[in-house]
Amino acid sequence: MPTKTLEQLARFVNGKVKGDAGIKISSVATLENAGPADISFLANPKYAKALAATKAGAVIVGKDIDCPASLLIAEDPYYAFMQIVVLLYGHRKHKNTGISKKASISETARIGDGCQIYDFAAVSDNVVIGKNTVIYPNVFIGPDVKIGDNCILYPSATIYDGCVLGNNVIINSNTTIGKDGYGYATHKGKHHKIPQIGKVIIEDDVEIGCNCGIQRGTLEDTVIGHGCKLGDLINIGHGTKIGPHCLLIGQIAVAGSTTIGHHCVIAGQVGIVGHIKIGNCVKIAAQAGVINDIPDGQAVAGTPAIGALSAKRAYSIIEDLPEIKKALGRLEKSSNNGPPCHSERSAAE
Amino acid sequence: MPTKTLEQLARFVNGKVKGDAGIKISSVATLENAGPADISFLANPKYAKALAATKAGAVIVGKDIDCPASLLIAEDPYYAFMQIVVLLYGHRKHKNTGISKKASISETARIGDGCQIYDFAAVSDNVVIGKNTVIYPNVFIGPDVKIGDNCILYPSATIYDGCVLGNNVIINSNTTIGKDGYGYATHKGKHHKIPQIGKVIIEDDVEIGCNCGIQRGTLEDTVIGHGCKLGDLINIGHGTKIGPHCLLIGQIAVAGSTTIGHHCVIAGQVGIVGHIKIGNCVKIAAQAGVINDIPDGQAVAGTPAIGALSAKRAYSIIEDLPEIKKALGRLEKSSNNGPPCHSERSAAE
Amino acid sequence: MPTKTLEQLARFVNGKVKGDAGIKISSVATLENAGPADISFLANPKYAKALAATKAGAVIVGKDIDCPASLLIAEDPYYAFMQIVVLLYGHRKHKNTGISKKASISETARIGDGCQIYDFAAVSDNVVIGKNTVIYPNVFIGPDVKIGDNCILYPSATIYDGCVLGNNVIINSNTTIGKDGYGYATHKGKHHKIPQIGKVIIEDDVEIGCNCGIQRGTLEDTVIGHGCKLGDLINIGHGTKIGPHCLLIGQIAVAGSTTIGHHCVIAGQVGIVGHIKIGNCVKIAAQAGVINDIPDGQAVAGTPAIGALSAKRAYSIIEDLPEIKKALGRLEKSSNNGPPCHSERSAAE
Repeated sequence: MPTKTLEQLARFVNGKVKGDAGIKISSVATLENAGPADISFLANPKYAKALAATKAGAVIVGKDIDCPASLLIAEDPYYAFMQIVVLLYGHRKHKNTGISKKASISETARIGDGCQIYDFAAVSDNVVIGKNTVIYPNVFIGPDVKIGDNCILYPSATIYDGCVLGNNVIINSNTTIGKDGYGYATHKGKHHKIPQIGKVIIEDDVEIGCNCGIQRGTLEDTVIGHGCKLGDLINIGHGTKIGPHCLLIGQIAVAGSTTIGHHCVIAGQVGIVGHIKIGNCVKIAAQAGVINDIPDGQAVAGTPAIGALSAKRAYSIIEDLPEIKKALGRLEKSSNNGPPCHSERSAAE
Repeated sequence: MPTKTLEQLARFVNGKVKGDAGIKISSVATLENAGPADISFLANPKYAKALAATKAGAVIVGKDIDCPASLLIAEDPYYAFMQIVVLLYGHRKHKNTGISKKASISETARIGDGCQIYDFAAVSDNVVIGKNTVIYPNVFIGPDVKIGDNCILYPSATIYDGCVLGNNVIINSNTTIGKDGYGYATHKGKHHKIPQIGKVIIEDDVEIGCNCGIQRGTLEDTVIGHGCKLGDLINIGHGTKIGPHCLLIGQIAVAGSTTIGHHCVIAGQVGIVGHIKIGNCVKIAAQAGVINDIPDGQAVAGTPAIGALSAKRAYSIIEDLPEIKKALGRLEKSSNNGPPCHSERSAAE
Repeated sequence: MPTKTLEQLARFVNGKVKGDAGIKISSVATLENAGPADISFLANPKYAKALAATKAGAVIVGKDIDCPASLLIAEDPYYAFMQIVVLLYGHRKHKNTGISKKASISETARIGDGCQIYDFAAVSDNVVIGKNTVIYPNVFIGPDVKIGDNCILYPSATIYDGCVLGNNVIINSNTTIGKDGYGYATHKGKHHKIPQIGKVIIEDDVEIGCNCGIQRGTLEDTVIGHGCKLGDLINIGHGTKIGPHCLLIGQIAVAGSTTIGHHCVIAGQVGIVGHIKIGNCVKIAAQAGVINDIPDGQAVAGTPAIGALSAKRAYSIIEDLPEIKKALGRLEKSSNNGPPCHSERSAAE
């Protein structure tokens, strides 16, 4: 790993040093585990206490703050952290072996310069792959698939026929792209499979986690928009369209034919029904169940999903329900009897 | 794609034409995107508005209705739609290559006529496969597995030893069939693995989505009944038995030793505990948590699951809980004080 | 399968016989399905009724009880059951083929004695594998991975670079270990991938189910502690540390940087947020959503998770919410009017 002075790092991320600009940094660590050659960062305010005790050589922060270490003050400290991790470590390297003879490549596939295709990868007829794309062992690429430049397909990723991946797309292991949408016509008690004619389009700069399933559309394409980042074990239904730069954390299910705008943030284990419209910059809290359209900019939570603040207030009261019910019972009893003293007195009057 | 007149299509699905029976149809599209050579359909009433604006040449409907396009009136319009998609597009074609020399086939495996087994598929000892079954790259078929006719196993599907698949079974990519049930005996703080002796039986005409895990049984078999259609990322516990023609949409977890009747519909992200009995024709709403037996024909929702209508009413009130609590507080206060005016006055009296 | 007398079985599990000690047992079955050569067991009290009707030759129980069959009375009957299943059936056998020539093994990989590596498995540079480890077809083992003795990696399991597996580890099919953590720095509307430098460490005696995703850490390692048993379709976030001997049933999501103690039991579909601390021996009920630290020994349920008993009481009342709201409305109305008779009279006074 390269070693940089704090001064060099600050210049690299367009930040300022407070403290020893000449200190040498060779690695990145958490506040708790950092030593004098490490740079750390303060992103989660929960860790402010750790800041006071850190043995890091330097800490990336958003503003001047009391700290035993030298500071690298950056406008966007988490972004600066990312830049420094990339500088010091780089992204994963992929072995340069070209196209393995133990891969299975159709004669009709067209593969760009600089691709790595490893053993036991299968590339079907009429596949087109751009430049510098890396295809790991046991990946399957179905007929007529198009894949752009600089993509990475990790082991056992499967791309069904006809799907389209843009440039700089990452598909993690055991993820399935373009499997048939869940579409059956039920007739006289039997479910008849409807051919799914749409494909999956994954736009540029998308990363999809491991063990996901992205269904192809019945008639229209399923689209994962430019710059979206999907976590693991996510299921996207047929014909659903996700706008650019959305974050889907993990274990999310979005049913078919739903439209999601840009820059949405969808937390873990959320479920979203089909055929609805979710606006731009929507935030959906973990485990929410969304059954209605959501306008731009809204934050929702709960099942069925309601405004996030309302949900926070409301769900914190569920624990009080037994007491509420009891209190209500007492009130009803006293009300049915009439307010005891008065009614008795009135009866006596 | 073949071109058909609307008249031909109507005859094919046993429906009636209203409008131009001679119009030529070559493809299928949604109401919004259809052009004059497309046939579309109205299945979801939400799209009635789109019907008025459609440029489709024809629309499949269930009854006569105002529409700018010609109508194909069918008794079961979604079924007619399916039939027409199959007619015009067909199901996925699989390349006819026979048994690849790059596959790994045990000498003791018996493989029926007309099978396609692609590169890097592994077929273990004593496997029996019927006719015309298609096995994609990187599929693993464990020892003693039996697979029927006309099955399709998509890439990286894994069938553990001894499992049985009927005819016309489809297993999608990265799905795992017959992994050991989650069974451990905890003794003095350690969890000891219990051999899982049961197998998985998948009956005829079942489709299982991608990235699912179906556990084998501890002592009894896990059974997925005839005609069931499972979506993606579904987990079925050991020894669970699902009756014929059930629909399980996606991301569902059913724990072990539960019995599910026929023609149930289980929506996304539902969880069902083990050792219970779910009747026939039961409907379980998305994200429900089922912890008790459910009689035939019931619809349930919520966690813990209650009647679907009750749940709908009840969960819509959760948002009002803060106001309910406040109102109750006001009432209690006034009740404890006695009805204020009176009690004060009575004190003054 | 070997045949044993009930006497022999009792001695093997350190239990006592009540009834015919000479009866011959060759297999294990459920109470309902057992015949005279079967031993069965009573673990779930729901099955006490089945006990009376069983045709089993013998039944493993925890204490003397009325039963038509002979009894094997053991201190820990489920543990005794496990021991007997292992004795009579054994664990899965793996074919002894050594290292397949159809596998892809890096020249720099070091593989211990007695390993089985099957066709189409890919073992990358600098991998170290201990003795007697079994690697199924289509498994991928990334560069610099270390795997201990007696491990089993089922088909299409994927281990990303640098991860470490201890001894006796089982990874089921289509599970992904060491995929990058979900870490992006969002800057000016774009999400920038942060290299994930941590690895995944899986300690001894861990089993991980099928179709799971275990993320590597951003800076610190993700750790699955000694003896943990994870079910299927589980997603563990980056840098999360799970202590020894935890049970995670299935479809669970744990976000990043969370710490979980030892001997916790986490039921199906639970979600746990990141950056929290869960104590030892904590029990989390199915579908719970955990957003706060949990002290040792607590049982929680619900979303957000609260004490399990409180949750049970509270959630059972949700169904009454419409009636609660109505009753409250009646009370408020009568209160606003004042207690009718009095206020009217007082106005009249």
